This record gives sequence, structure tokens and C-alpha cells, in this order.
Amino acid sequence: MRFLGLNKLPIAQAHLRALNNAGVNSVKFYSATAEPKEPVVRTKTIPGPKSVELNKKLGEIQSTGSIQYFADYEKSSGNYIQDVDGNVLLDVYTQISSVPLGYNHPRLLNLFKDDKNIKTLVNRPALGVFPGKEWPDKLQSILLQVAPKGLNKITTMMCGSCSNENAFKSIFIWYQNKVRGTAKLTEDEICSCMVNMPPGAPELSILSFKGAFHGRTLGALSTTHSKYIHKLDVPSFDWPIASFPQYKYPLEENVAENKKEDEKCLAEVADLIEVYKKKGKPVAGVIIEPIQSEGGDNEASPEFFQGLQRICKQNGSALLIDEVQTGGGSTGKFWCHEHFNLESPPDVVTFSKKLQLGGYFHNDDFVPKEPYRIFNTWMGDPGKVIILEEILKVIKEEKLMGNVASAGKVLKDGLLSLEKEFPNLLNSTRGRGTYLAVNSVNGKVRDSIVANLKLNGIQTGGCGENAIRFRPALVFKEHHANIVLDRFRKVLKSL
Amino acid sequence: MRFLGLNKLPIAQAHLRALNNAGVNSVKFYSATAEPKEPVVRTKTIPGPKSVELNKKLGEIQSTGSIQYFADYEKSSGNYIQDVDGNVLLDVYTQISSVPLGYNHPRLLNLFKDDKNIKTLVNRPALGVFPGKEWPDKLQSILLQVAPKGLNKITTMMCGSCSNENAFKSIFIWYQNKVRGTAKLTEDEICSCMVNMPPGAPELSILSFKGAFHGRTLGALSTTHSKYIHKLDVPSFDWPIASFPQYKYPLEENVAENKKEDEKCLAEVADLIEVYKKKGKPVAGVIIEPIQSEGGDNEASPEFFQGLQRICKQNGSALLIDEVQTGGGSTGKFWCHEHFNLESPPDVVTFSKKLQLGGYFHNDDFVPKEPYRIFNTWMGDPGKVIILEEILKVIKEEKLMGNVASAGKVLKDGLLSLEKEFPNLLNSTRGRGTYLAVNSVNGKVRDSIVANLKLNGIQTGGCGENAIRFRPALVFKEHHANIVLDRFRKVLKSL
Repeated sequence: MRFLGLNKLPIAQAHLRALNNAGVNSVKFYSATAEPKEPVVRTKTIPGPKSVELNKKLGEIQSTGSIQYFADYEKSSGNYIQDVDGNVLLDVYTQISSVPLGYNHPRLLNLFKDDKNIKTLVNRPALGVFPGKEWPDKLQSILLQVAPKGLNKITTMMCGSCSNENAFKSIFIWYQNKVRGTAKLTEDEICSCMVNMPPGAPELSILSFKGAFHGRTLGALSTTHSKYIHKLDVPSFDWPIASFPQYKYPLEENVAENKKEDEKCLAEVADLIEVYKKKGKPVAGVIIEPIQSEGGDNEASPEFFQGLQRICKQNGSALLIDEVQTGGGSTGKFWCHEHFNLESPPDVVTFSKKLQLGGYFHNDDFVPKEPYRIFNTWMGDPGKVIILEEILKVIKEEKLMGNVASAGKVLKDGLLSLEKEFPNLLNSTRGRGTYLAVNSVNGKVRDSIVANLKLNGIQTGGCGENAIRFRPALVFKEHHANIVLDRFRKVLKSL
Repeated sequence: MRFLGLNKLPIAQAHLRALNNAGVNSVKFYSATAEPKEPVVRTKTIPGPKSVELNKKLGEIQSTGSIQYFADYEKSSGNYIQDVDGNVLLDVYTQISSVPLGYNHPRLLNLFKDDKNIKTLVNRPALGVFPGKEWPDKLQSILLQVAPKGLNKITTMMCGSCSNENAFKSIFIWYQNKVRGTAKLTEDEICSCMVNMPPGAPELSILSFKGAFHGRTLGALSTTHSKYIHKLDVPSFDWPIASFPQYKYPLEENVAENKKEDEKCLAEVADLIEVYKKKGKPVAGVIIEPIQSEGGDNEASPEFFQGLQRICKQNGSALLIDEVQTGGGSTGKFWCHEHFNLESPPDVVTFSKKLQLGGYFHNDDFVPKEPYRIFNTWMGDPGKVIILEEILKVIKEEKLMGNVASAGKVLKDGLLSLEKEFPNLLNSTRGRGTYLAVNSVNGKVRDSIVANLKLNGIQTGGCGENAIRFRPALVFKEHHANIVLDRFRKVLKSL
């Protein structure tokens, strides 16, 4: 990333004039991202020696078992992450799918040349009490601009877990309001909830799916079932857990069998709702990912989601679609559930990661009637919203959704070819857009592939028991896909 | 806030040279904060007409029941918040106690004139996997610099609720490791936790106190008992809840009675630990605020906290002190529990608000042995840490802890005088540093005082049933305290 004089950048000059006219002082501009041409691996192992040294230092202060290496974010650029040992990796994992425009995008760097944005950063308000004058406009022009069709209300939060936790609460409140009807709140409800007991703190449940991941705070964790290490030793709510479809691939060769799988899983959902109603823990809501990510990039068909919505409606349970990882464009649509042609909008859609802050979209039914029911000190972060605003502009101006489609096609076709070429190592290529995954034959082989890909300059991630997941940024293009595929082939040949 | 040329600021010039030597281009500096001399109220009601208009607009998008007015943060300065209708209020509530240096502090504005800091903002990493090269140093030089004595480990998070939630998890893991001893993890534990059942998801509990506030996500909410509206309709864990001391004021005239109150409450804690052990829900940890804030600014004596720690140790329960609101200097010490002369450090101390990001300090025992047990995508936010770094420097350089002591004394003495002057309206002045509160005779009078204070240019907050809380920034000085007291007297006279 070089810092250019203004005279070298005619576009920046025009932008500068516009900003000067708007009363903004002294704006300097970063040049367009100069990405490396290809990955460069300089050390025999990753982490290299400098990362190992830093890891030792950090280990004196906190747990470091999950750290892969230490990055040099000043030197990272576009799709390439650079580590402290000078390794330059093509990053198709992007901080667990949370970097939409790659590293050091010039448009994001320029944002904070604007004094107004700096003031937004340093004056963080309690948004639920003293929002800034621009907040209604920002919500309208930024977040509602990308609202899932049919959902015109937004509640902002900080991260994915607290978005799901608060969405649960909105669902519980909505459900109890239906139960209560026109009856007045009783003294018993008020007093019992203060000591964590029914009827005020009712035994309601949220149905989730095996393999699901919805976060790690205690409520969210009760709906997470991807790996035991996330859940062991932590008390949990007794909430129902249904089977998520497990498909045979390729899909087009297993249509009848996969359809049966859908039906079996949907029947289980309906059955569990009945069982938990009888158990005195009615299902207020159902939470589901459009693609189970942490759990192994498990897909379900549009028909499955349509059926699930019907069951929810029949039973008066809200349907919450968790788009924390799938949201933001990389599945080829801004929200993955747009692929499902649902009969009506889902009740609640949660987001975070690529959207920089957390939150959930919903309709009027899920707006609490009383103040302070859904509330916390910060309720989101305007400093993140201004970054999101610029990200959405860049997605539009640089036509990044088209990018996702074309680069995704190259990557998926390539993975399908590799699967045919190496049937003893790979199978079940799947996904949408650039949001793709492929299985290896077992966890050990998967781990070896992911490690070798890294040593060949490609940063991927594992998920589930034996899947490799691809989560490139939206600026990932066809030529990046070809680099990934070339290096992947090289790794597979070497095994 | 004026934007000065560099030639007018010799200190800035020296700073600029230093930065230029460090390779930073084009840094401009803000002048020192030019605060208004006193509050100015221009509208007959607050919210004024422009706030009402914006509220209508926001109401189309989300719940607005808790909003007081819309602020103009560009025009707010130091201790003064300005609203969109031109009202300038002396802010002694500071976004629910989360603004340490007031609004638009020049040192914070200057931070983002540094390109390096901007890169930190726009390249947000998954800190648990790919931290930046400066992360170990930042934790060491910033967060550990203010670590409570005896706690040398830090886990960073995003907000107060998720700090408490993750601290609970650390405590549960620690507790189960003690129970497990040298025994190996069983298949039964692994399988049962995946379906939310014991023994893998054991029925452990966290003991909390009546009137406590520890957040609103489902785990944290199970330990929150300040107001029913926070808890109604939300399922909860059956965890024990003990009485928090309720003192008679003035403290020096009620020593014996308050001591008895301490003993009664401590006996209740010991008893509940026994009861919940027998119930099969052993108390893994006890969570407590040094001053119950949301619940009414309820204090407990150092002797109470010492006794509580002894009970925890006797029963093998961890002591978690929640300093989310009390931490950061306004009680006269950086951590309020430093006032308590505990025999040994608490096991876990959580923080957020004034510290810009969340997290918890702990010792080696609470570092999970396996990776991914305490984890999420972001694990904090380096962009907030650079703000915290500057805040801590300013606290030191501007000797703000001395400020808190002197301004706090003026404010507390003044409140005690007002209490004597208006015994039918006020009582029970209490608190430490500038972290002060006074009770009014009932909730209705309290609400009227808070509303009238606002119309007289003073932004305070209510808490509990009938308390008024003062949460000024650390830059709040003696002359600000005198303005608050003058206006408060005027309001009390008018009632």
C-alpha cells in the first residue's frame, strides 16, 4: 500500500473537490490496492519463527491454542494476508468469513480521513438512549437498504452471539404476548421472573439442529451442536434438537434419496415440537443456518426450508434464520435464504461478521412494546456502521456480486474437477457463490490438506469432521480461484 | 472544537516530528477542548421539536421507547452533550457511565490522524486465530498495565454481557476440571453435552444477588435481578439468589445495624450454597458488583466482600467481581474492589464500558487448557484497544484520578448538604469518588427530579426504585460539581 500524492490520482482529486465542497478539511487518498501477483511462502513451517516467538509472549497473558500465526496487517493487501515471517498467503478464509473487501481496501482507509467519521468513532453513544442525529438516516440508508425482503425493522447489536441471544428474547416476548392475549400481566408473573421461575420466566424453548452453530454465550450455546469442545462443562437449557438433512452428492444423482432425507428431518421437527409442547416447554422459535457452516458446510434444499417454514406457521413458532456467516453476499445473493423462495419472509434474520456489527431484521410483531425489554448500553456501534456503509457502496460500484458469481463458478467447477481427479481424497463439493466446501475422506486427511495448502500459500479453514471450507472476500476473482485450484492440485498430488 | 494550524501548537509540532520520524504522514492536530461555561437549555421540553421529529423517523425502523433525545456529537464537547435542538447539558450520566474523557477529547480525535491506527480499524482480525503482530505488546502494555493486583491473565471480549457469559464458562470449566481431577473425559460426557444434557452439560449454578445487574443475554440475565421488565418472558436457569445488604444511612450512625445486615446476608449466601449443592446444582461461582448500579447504587462494606470471599474459598466457588460499570477510575481507584482490602485477589474481574471493549482478568487457573473452549470470531477489537491506550495515557498525564477525588468530594459533600436542606426529598447520599447516588423519597419524585434537572441543564440517570445516579466522566472537575449542585438546589426548591 503506497501513499500517493494527490497529483497522481485524478479520481481522488475529483473526490477531494467534492469533499472540500462539503466542508471537509485536508483529505488524503490511498491508491488502489496493489495486490501481490501470487502467494509467497518463505518459511519451512507456518507458524514461522517470528510467529512462534510472539506466540510465546502472548502465552504469558492468555490461551493461544487456536492461533495459527501472527499477521502483519499493515502489509496485508486485498486477498493476501501477510504474516510476520514474510509469508504472503492468498486468504480464502478471511478471518472466519468476516472480511468483505480484503485487507486495506483504499476506500476504507480513506474513510477516516474525514473528521466527521473520526468524531463518530470517538463519541460512542448509548444508542438506545442518546442516539446521534444521523442515526435514523444511517439505519434507513445503510441497513434497511440490505434488509431481507419483507422485514422492515432492525435491532442493532455487537456480534453474532448477542444478536441470536436478543433475537431469542424478541421471540420469547412475542410468543408470551400471544399466550397472554388481552389478559393483564399478573403480580405472580412479575415476582416469579425476578427469581428466575415460571410463570414470569416461562419454560419456553428454541428448536435447533444437530451440527448447528449459533454462538457460544449460554443461550446461543444451547442451540449450538457442532463440536463438543464448545459445550463441555457448560450448563444448558433442555431445548429440542432435530436432525439436519445429510445429503448424498452429487445432488443431481441422488434426488429421490435426498428428498426422503428432507421429509424425515421435517417429520422429526414436527414431532419434537409436539413432544416439547407436552413436556411443558413449548417451542417459541426455530433457529437454523441457511448453510450449516462451523458444523461442516451442510446444505439443505429450498424445499426443506419451505417445509420448515410451514411447520413453524402451523405451530405458532417463529422462524429465525441465522445469516451471521452466510450473510453479506458471498453465496451469490446478499442473504443466502433468498435462494429458497420462501412463501413469506422469515420472522427474524440475524447477522454479523461481514456486516461489521451484529443485529437482526424482523417485522413489526417482534418490536417490543415496552422500553428496555431489548436493550443494552451500546446497542451496536455507529463506528462500524460507517465502515459498513462504505463496504456496501464498494460492493455496488465494483459490481462485487457479479464477481462472486463468476469467481464462484470457476472455483466450484474446479473443485468438482479435482474431486473427479482425486476420488480417493475428495468428495461432495457443494455450496453457492464463493461460499463453497469439499469433503476429504477423513479428519486426518483434511487437516493435512489444510496444513499443506497453507504451506503452498493458500489459507483455508476446516469445518465439521472432514470438510474444507472456502470463504474468500467479495473481491476474490477468477484468477484468484485459478491460483487456489493450481495449488490445491499440487497438494493433492503430493499426498 | 477548532482545527488549528500546526504553527499554533508547539507541543503538537514536537509530536508531529516524532510521528514523522516514525514514518507517519500528514498528521493534523485538534486543539484542547473548548467546553461551554455552563449548560444552556433552549427548548421548553426535552426532547425538543427536532428530537421529536427524529424519534418519529426512527420509530419507523425500531423501538424508541427508551430514547431521551438525539444528540449532536459533533458539537458536544468535554463534559457537555449538545442535543439536536441546541440544548447543551452538563452530562453526569455519560452514556450509562461509558465515556471516560468526555466528548471529542482532542487526544482521541488525533489518534486517527495516524495511518497505522486507521489500518488497525479497517483490518479487524479474528484475534483468537490470526492476531496482529502488535497484539501481545498491546495486551501487555495497555490491559495488563491496569490489571487488578494478582490477576495476570486477560481474555478480551466485546461487551459487558459477553464478558460475564464467558467468565461464567471459564468458571464452569475450572470447576468441572476440579471435579474430574485426574479422571479422563468419558464418552458419556462428550455425547451428553452435545444434546444439552448432564453429565457433559452439568447442572452447575452461579450465585447472584437480589438487585444485581450483570447483563441481558440468557446466562447473564439469569444473574440479573434489578427490574422485572428485563427478565419477563425469558426462560432462565434456576440459580440461587441471595440478599444484598440494604444499609441504613448515614453509615456512621448505623454501624451496628449495618454490620448485622452484612452477617445476615453472608449467612444466606452460605446457606444457599448448601441448599443448591443438595439440589444437585452446585455453586461453581458467585458474581457480584462492587456497587450494585442498575439496581439502585447499593453499596456493601469491605467486610462484607471479605466475608463473601472467605465463603467462596470454603466452598470451592469462584468469586467473580463484575466491574463493568464501576471499573475505569470513577470510584477513586481504577477498580472499585481495590477499596475492599480482600485477603487475596478475586478469581475473575469483568470489565467493559469506560474500557471501550469488554473482557475479564483472571489467574492461571481460569485459562482453558484446550483451544476453542473460550472463543468467538472477534474476541475483542484492536480498534477499541488503541482508543483505550490513549485514554489511559490521558488519565495519567492529566492526573484524572486526582480529579475524581477532588471533584467527587465536592459533589458528595454538596449532596449531603442538600440532603440536610431537603430532608423530605432526599436521603442516603452514598458512593465513592464521583460514582455517587442519592435517594429521593419515591420513584415519582425521583423521576420528576431527573426530568427537572435535565430542563435545568443537568443530565443525570435514575437507578433502582428511587435513586438518582451520578456518573460523570473522569474530566469532571470541582467547578462542574458546583454547577450540578446549584442547579440541583434550584430544582429541589421548585418542587
